[in-house]
Amino acid sequence: MLQGPDPRGHGHQSGQDIFSAACLPPFLCLDGRVLITLTTDFGTSDWFTGSMKGVISGIAPATRIIDITHQIPPGDLVDGAFTLAASSPYFPAGTIHVAVVDPGVGSARRAITLRTRRAIFIGPDNGVLSWAVREQQIEEVRILNNEDWFLEPVSHTFHGRDIFAPAAARLATGARFDEAGDTIEDYVRLPWPEVVEGDNEVRGEIVHIDRFGNAISNLPASVFPRELLDSGGITTMCGGRPAPLRHCYTDVHLGKTLAILGSSDLLELAINGDDFAEQNGIEVGSPVRAKW
Amino acid sequence: MLQGPDPRGHGHQSGQDIFSAACLPPFLCLDGRVLITLTTDFGTSDWFTGSMKGVISGIAPATRIIDITHQIPPGDLVDGAFTLAASSPYFPAGTIHVAVVDPGVGSARRAITLRTRRAIFIGPDNGVLSWAVREQQIEEVRILNNEDWFLEPVSHTFHGRDIFAPAAARLATGARFDEAGDTIEDYVRLPWPEVVEGDNEVRGEIVHIDRFGNAISNLPASVFPRELLDSGGITTMCGGRPAPLRHCYTDVHLGKTLAILGSSDLLELAINGDDFAEQNGIEVGSPVRAKW
Amino acid sequence: MLQGPDPRGHGHQSGQDIFSAACLPPFLCLDGRVLITLTTDFGTSDWFTGSMKGVISGIAPATRIIDITHQIPPGDLVDGAFTLAASSPYFPAGTIHVAVVDPGVGSARRAITLRTRRAIFIGPDNGVLSWAVREQQIEEVRILNNEDWFLEPVSHTFHGRDIFAPAAARLATGARFDEAGDTIEDYVRLPWPEVVEGDNEVRGEIVHIDRFGNAISNLPASVFPRELLDSGGITTMCGGRPAPLRHCYTDVHLGKTLAILGSSDLLELAINGDDFAEQNGIEVGSPVRAKW
Repeated sequence: MLQGPDPRGHGHQSGQDIFSAACLPPFLCLDGRVLITLTTDFGTSDWFTGSMKGVISGIAPATRIIDITHQIPPGDLVDGAFTLAASSPYFPAGTIHVAVVDPGVGSARRAITLRTRRAIFIGPDNGVLSWAVREQQIEEVRILNNEDWFLEPVSHTFHGRDIFAPAAARLATGARFDEAGDTIEDYVRLPWPEVVEGDNEVRGEIVHIDRFGNAISNLPASVFPRELLDSGGITTMCGGRPAPLRHCYTDVHLGKTLAILGSSDLLELAINGDDFAEQNGIEVGSPVRAKW
Repeated sequence: MLQGPDPRGHGHQSGQDIFSAACLPPFLCLDGRVLITLTTDFGTSDWFTGSMKGVISGIAPATRIIDITHQIPPGDLVDGAFTLAASSPYFPAGTIHVAVVDPGVGSARRAITLRTRRAIFIGPDNGVLSWAVREQQIEEVRILNNEDWFLEPVSHTFHGRDIFAPAAARLATGARFDEAGDTIEDYVRLPWPEVVEGDNEVRGEIVHIDRFGNAISNLPASVFPRELLDSGGITTMCGGRPAPLRHCYTDVHLGKTLAILGSSDLLELAINGDDFAEQNGIEVGSPVRAKW
Repeated sequence: MLQGPDPRGHGHQSGQDIFSAACLPPFLCLDGRVLITLTTDFGTSDWFTGSMKGVISGIAPATRIIDITHQIPPGDLVDGAFTLAASSPYFPAGTIHVAVVDPGVGSARRAITLRTRRAIFIGPDNGVLSWAVREQQIEEVRILNNEDWFLEPVSHTFHGRDIFAPAAARLATGARFDEAGDTIEDYVRLPWPEVVEGDNEVRGEIVHIDRFGNAISNLPASVFPRELLDSGGITTMCGGRPAPLRHCYTDVHLGKTLAILGSSDLLELAINGDDFAEQNGIEVGSPVRAKW
């Protein structure tokens, strides 16, 4: 769930560990084509993301920077975690993902980096990174406490610029992962909202509402009987009237409600040509039920 | 109209066909400096555009990706078509333009790519590409039905990520245009709103309202008597009171209404220092008249 | 104030003049790794920034373009000037900063470029560039009146695309600074809002409200007694009740107001976990007072 195919055709768990010690400095394996992605709640009306990119470019001039989004609602760890989990599988191996949703910036909360076989994740240790790696084998977790990597002086309010951006840039230019700081075992994990499987039904909740007003739930394709996914014998309830599970938005008439398995392989409620969440007063956390 | 000068100083129709068979793989002619542009209605608060960029970067690591906009109103084909037509002339020859405004995603609507002598266009066959090429010679149109190019499994709701992005990336890395899929002759064209030329007057309608509240019409400079463009003898009507045709916003006092020939060489209504559309209740489709 | 550390570890005023005549064409000193940043009020819902990037890419294909923001309120020179001043210090030496907040476009206002030892600034001569350079030594100021550099025909409404973007691109590809146009001595400077220092107090005003509703003032860290910054003996007033100066947002309970020295080293008012400006009706220009 949420793990899409590798665009280069490799699975996630299989294949060479591209960050292993046998391949140093790690990113030289990637021909210097490292990407850094940014996921933040900084918005786009200030200079915050621009400053982060300036810092990265000063340290790692050849690195490409890709914005996932900067519109995470302020301080919304769940939305940040979901967004990172939904997008990161579609980036090439070796990508460095930076996520800064950081209401505790400047406090005792730790700054961390995690390494899987496919990617590096950097951000505050508040759970925002945890859903992106929850079904992957984590090779190493480290605190970012190597002050030589910081932009001095470190502000109390903008670690995105002063700690996370330079750490990503250092790793992108081939710095060893173990230079980032001390290794740790624990890190903060956000709980995935509970999926309750019953007799011919399953219950969950809405975890994200997208730009079109489609309401994405925490119910993965795998909880549904496979033979019913095609036959259409599944009915969903979220807010208003029951809605049938279909394949694409235009499988129902304009203005009609339907459910689909969306692009992240999660059950999603929608209206063909309209805003489902707004029309039905649905929010993140609203309950969803499917039966057959 | 809408076709600006080539920043490199070449005309649009003239010059070498940079995608011709004599120059294979086509983009090697461009020194690997291919650009991909993205125009979508995906917004910027989700991960959709980020995922597309991840897919492109996995296949075509050296390709630059430029956002035109992701704020096309959901499903608004006319606005998507207008935006692509207004921006694409300003990109260098060889650019690959991807436009995804796709309310019919997952249905029987076709995915296509068009090739002119200057650029490649990729998107759903619903008209969103059609205004960008309406005054250009189209060399070739193909359905994107080469499944080897798709990201597997193809979702029913996100062909931007699964079909259009990988197709653009393949072409950017030198894949032959004829590998994209079967050739077709027809494709969906949106009608350009009617321009009615009368005695010393012309009528049209608003086709786009920009960030500043300026209302851009479908009336090109070419329908006005050239000798009056400088002398100022043209008066326009759109909503409220008559407004004179002037050269720049500050040709009238702050708060006053004027018409200009805007940066796309179309008649545009504005208030110096204020939001014309909001102040006058003007929307896309509102009628415009100019007389002299 | 507002001048952060150079990410590469060099001070701003010291070091080699990277644009000097001894180093021609100037940017070859930078290994072709020139960045162009864009700060505009164009928004992101139109194609305006996309067209600028297309023009730049046609002239300077290897140049990276970084968006600072395009959400400057329409025509708001103060916000544009502040944003450029807050972000530009974090870019590597040699960066070319383009700022287009240009309500007078097409009128007699001049288009200019300024050169410091660290960076080049390009934009209209209306003050939008002035805060970014107000504490730096300016090496040279020129009018952009070399028509060979313009995109022809120059529109009356979009000099961002037709004059500023191509000028930035020319300089990025190694054109000599003195080819840009005639040298001038004067240029428009915006006044920095007055800082009034009294007995154990200082008064100023709010100059920017950020995405989180934090209200950033014009009061720099340097006006406060250094020994009190740590001890916490400073109280601020802005709108509602007095708020103590603290180090980070979580130094007060959720929902409580505090003041901090923010990431640009300016006094900033905030509520831990909430929107200070909205809760207190604070706007740009609202008075701020601090006493001890």
